[in-house]
Amino acid sequence: MDKNAPIGVFDSGVGGLTVAREIMRQIPNERIVYFGDTARVPYGSKSKDNIIKFSRQIIRFLQTENVKAIVIACNTASALALDEMQQEFDLPILGVVKPGAKVAVETTANKRIGLIGTEANIRSGVYTRYIKSLDDEAKVFEKACPLFVPLVEEGWLHDDITLQVASRYLEELKEKDIDTLIMGCTHYPLIRSTIRKVMGDKVNLVNPAYETAIELKNLLERDNLANKCDVDSPSSMYRFYVSDAEEKFKLFANSILPFDITMTKQINIENY
Amino acid sequence: MDKNAPIGVFDSGVGGLTVAREIMRQIPNERIVYFGDTARVPYGSKSKDNIIKFSRQIIRFLQTENVKAIVIACNTASALALDEMQQEFDLPILGVVKPGAKVAVETTANKRIGLIGTEANIRSGVYTRYIKSLDDEAKVFEKACPLFVPLVEEGWLHDDITLQVASRYLEELKEKDIDTLIMGCTHYPLIRSTIRKVMGDKVNLVNPAYETAIELKNLLERDNLANKCDVDSPSSMYRFYVSDAEEKFKLFANSILPFDITMTKQINIENY
Repeated sequence: MDKNAPIGVFDSGVGGLTVAREIMRQIPNERIVYFGDTARVPYGSKSKDNIIKFSRQIIRFLQTENVKAIVIACNTASALALDEMQQEFDLPILGVVKPGAKVAVETTANKRIGLIGTEANIRSGVYTRYIKSLDDEAKVFEKACPLFVPLVEEGWLHDDITLQVASRYLEELKEKDIDTLIMGCTHYPLIRSTIRKVMGDKVNLVNPAYETAIELKNLLERDNLANKCDVDSPSSMYRFYVSDAEEKFKLFANSILPFDITMTKQINIENY
Repeated sequence: MDKNAPIGVFDSGVGGLTVAREIMRQIPNERIVYFGDTARVPYGSKSKDNIIKFSRQIIRFLQTENVKAIVIACNTASALALDEMQQEFDLPILGVVKPGAKVAVETTANKRIGLIGTEANIRSGVYTRYIKSLDDEAKVFEKACPLFVPLVEEGWLHDDITLQVASRYLEELKEKDIDTLIMGCTHYPLIRSTIRKVMGDKVNLVNPAYETAIELKNLLERDNLANKCDVDSPSSMYRFYVSDAEEKFKLFANSILPFDITMTKQINIENY
C-alpha cells in the first residue's frame, strides 16, 4: 500500500467534517478524501440494512480513490455497519464509536455515563455494549435527540429554542447523576456550548472525534502506513465528494473547516 | 387501461399519507398503491437533479404495480419533478402544487398569498409561478420552514416549542397582511392548529391535498378511468411500499389513517 495514499473519511452528510477537521489537525501530513452522502442524509432515522448498504457503496467508491484506510466519521454508521464493513473489506476501517466509548470509560469517576445520539444509534445499543466490555461496572444512560441535527443544519447554534429543546432532551440524564456525556453524533459538538449550559460545568463532554484521530494515527504508525511527506496546501491534500449538490455542502464545510474548500464533486453513489 | 387498476401515490416518506387519506375519503372506490421513500427522506433539503432521479425510480416501480395514474403527493417533488415526469412517462401524472395554487387564488380576497414549504420547494419558485399564471396581480410571500418536518416527525404536534418555532418562521408573513396561506408541505396540515394559533383566525389555511383529490377525481372521469366497482376492505384496496424499514412507517401511518394498515413491504428503490 502506498503511504502517500489518502485516508477515506465518510459521513451521512456534513457532520463528519468535525472528525475530518480533527484528523487534519492531529495528522496534518495525511491526505483525505471525504465523502458526504448528502442525497440520503440523515442516517439516524433509518434502518440497519440500509445503513449497511449505504456504507458498502461508499467504501466501494472510496476504494476507486485508492484510499489506504477508512474512517467511518458517522456515529450511526459506525454503530450499525462497522463490524460488517470490517469483514467485507480488506483494508483498515475505523469507526468513531469505539474511540468515544474508550474516552468515556477513561474519563468517568463515578462510572455513570450519559450517551446522546440519533435514534438508530441509540436503538442499536452498540455504544453501551462497547462501554460495558471495557468496564462492566459502568452504567450508561441513553437518550436519542432527533431534533439536534436539524437545529444545527438550520444554523440555530446559539439560540434560545435550541436551549429549550436541549433542556427537554437532557432533563432525564441530569437526574441520573452522570459525570460524563458522550456527544454521540458528529453534529453535536457544534452545539457544545448549549449542551454545556444545560448539563452544567461538572459533566465532562466527550467528543469522539478527538480520540478517533489518535487511534487513526496509531493505526497508521503500527501498520507502517503513515505518510512522512511534507504538508502540502489544503487544496491538494483534501478532496470532497457528495451525492447531492455541492453548493450547500461547500457553504457548511467552509463554516466548519479552517480553510475554504475548493475541490468538491457530486457523484452518483448508487452506481457503486 | 384497466379501470380497476390502482392509483399510484408517492411521497418522500409519510407526509403524503395526508394526501392519500384525502383521496380515500373523496374517491373511496379507487385502489391505491402508496410508496414512501423512507430510505432517502427528506427531499426538501436536496437538489432538483436528485429529486428528479428519485421520482423517476419511484414511477418506474409504481408501473410494475400497473397503476393507471400517479399522484405526486409531495410538494417538493411536485415542484421540482412534475414537468419532467409528465414528459417522460405515458400515463396521467398529477402533482399537489397546481391544485394548491388554484385554491389559493380562488380563496384570496386581497390577492396577498403566503406560502410555506421546504427549502427546495421555496427555492424552485414553482408555486409562485403557477399562482402568477392564474392571476398576475397576486402577490406571493414565501418562507421556508425546515424545522417543521422534524418537529412533526418527533410528534411535537401540540407543543410550546413548535409554537415558538412557528412564531419565528411566520412572523415576517404576518407582517405582509396576507389573507391566505398555502401549507406547501404534506407534513404541515398535521400542525395546522399551531399554524392557526400564530396566524390568527382571519387567514385562510390552504391544504392542497383536498383540491388534489378533486382534480384526480375529475381526471379519472374525463379519461374514462374511474373505478365503478363497490368499495372493498382497506386491506385489499390499499397497499403500502417503503424503501426503509416498515415498522416506523406503519406506526406513523396508523396514527394518520382512519384504519390500521396491514400490507406494508420494503423494496430496494435503487433497482428501478
